[in-house]
Amino acid sequence: MRRIKLEIAYDGTRYCGWQVQPEEITVEGLINEKLSQLLGEKIEVIGASRTDSGVHAMGNVAVFDTNSSIPAEKFAKALNVRLPEDIRVQTSCEVPIDFHPRRTECVKTYEYRIQNRKIEMPMDRLYSYFVYVDLDIEAMQRAAEYLVGTHDYKSFCSVKTQVLDTVRTIYSIKVSKKEDIIYIRIKGNGFLYNMVRIIVGTLINVGRGFHSPEKVLEILKACDRSLAGPTAPAKGLTLVKIEYNI
Amino acid sequence: MRRIKLEIAYDGTRYCGWQVQPEEITVEGLINEKLSQLLGEKIEVIGASRTDSGVHAMGNVAVFDTNSSIPAEKFAKALNVRLPEDIRVQTSCEVPIDFHPRRTECVKTYEYRIQNRKIEMPMDRLYSYFVYVDLDIEAMQRAAEYLVGTHDYKSFCSVKTQVLDTVRTIYSIKVSKKEDIIYIRIKGNGFLYNMVRIIVGTLINVGRGFHSPEKVLEILKACDRSLAGPTAPAKGLTLVKIEYNI
Repeated sequence: MRRIKLEIAYDGTRYCGWQVQPEEITVEGLINEKLSQLLGEKIEVIGASRTDSGVHAMGNVAVFDTNSSIPAEKFAKALNVRLPEDIRVQTSCEVPIDFHPRRTECVKTYEYRIQNRKIEMPMDRLYSYFVYVDLDIEAMQRAAEYLVGTHDYKSFCSVKTQVLDTVRTIYSIKVSKKEDIIYIRIKGNGFLYNMVRIIVGTLINVGRGFHSPEKVLEILKACDRSLAGPTAPAKGLTLVKIEYNI
Repeated sequence: MRRIKLEIAYDGTRYCGWQVQPEEITVEGLINEKLSQLLGEKIEVIGASRTDSGVHAMGNVAVFDTNSSIPAEKFAKALNVRLPEDIRVQTSCEVPIDFHPRRTECVKTYEYRIQNRKIEMPMDRLYSYFVYVDLDIEAMQRAAEYLVGTHDYKSFCSVKTQVLDTVRTIYSIKVSKKEDIIYIRIKGNGFLYNMVRIIVGTLINVGRGFHSPEKVLEILKACDRSLAGPTAPAKGLTLVKIEYNI
């Protein structure tokens, strides 16, 4: 028995997110279906990140076990010829049989894109959040610094979560702008439900001048979701990569 | 009577190009329909560039005449609330009544995007041409230099054209790369049918090492379409802007 790890990119527009759901088309559901067809046995992958409906990925991770003799690196291509063009397995390789993508320490990188111009540019509409009010990206960067470190991020977690421990570590948040797109890139060891999107919604409030960058420290300390900004739309979010030390 | 100029951005994916065609959904057709609804009279715009099916635009130009008293700059917003989200009028302004967008000297800027990596990234699939063979962008840039200037571009013109004069001026061609995307940006005073896409197909042949950059000069001089490369796919092409001296 071997365990195979896949790095998977997808355009989340058409999907009800990553996780298998009855009656819905999901990325995990399609990967399971195509792997099962390919191997002639029922396969259920274990995914690293259950991205929400509409969220994109350049490198989500999933593993599955098989007795097949197909070389590990061939699975990417074999899956891609079966998958629709909005899902592309980027790499496949063998990993230790006990490697679990959710229970192994990792660094996750997310990128959020804001289209900040007066009138939306249609080619970016599915991959960014359109904000026509001028955003102060220096203020957003200063606000972001308060969120870096190891903290209880309860203020930035959807109340729908079932997680009890809301302490996480954010290694960095970089706010940059190129032409009319603002990029918010966040690296951390794990993220709570909707955490990146709530952080982005809060930084946008700072960028609009609704409150000062310093207010974000207060919001963090309060551990109260109602004080943070709104959850920014899913379509602006991309899971860029997940790095493991294996 | 006033003449109003529109700058129009669109995602060409869903459209049979710019130009009105019976039974087909086109960008020009939709603009005519929504303007006619808005003004309560039959409007037919004059477009600057008849982009092909699947080609995108950040700034195509069209004009129309009206007696309406709506301020010129309000047309952009009034149209956008009626148009689908993959078409967005960026600006509207009044121009001299005799301004004709195809008969007035201008500088047109096109950008072609090539996704040059081993496995396609799904989020870019509708806006770039995927080439998995490593391309030598230095060779492509050197080849491009031979095409700058005032030349007969018959070799780079679809044989389907009805144009007799195939002399045009290209002011610049810049080949650059950021991450896995190669950008080819071309500025000229006018382009023949499929000219940018045939130039790109020819530069890709150079980038793959099929022939030397110098060969492109021979191809140009031969005035023979069959010597140039294939027409690169429409979806990688964007009409960036059209600049007039008015």
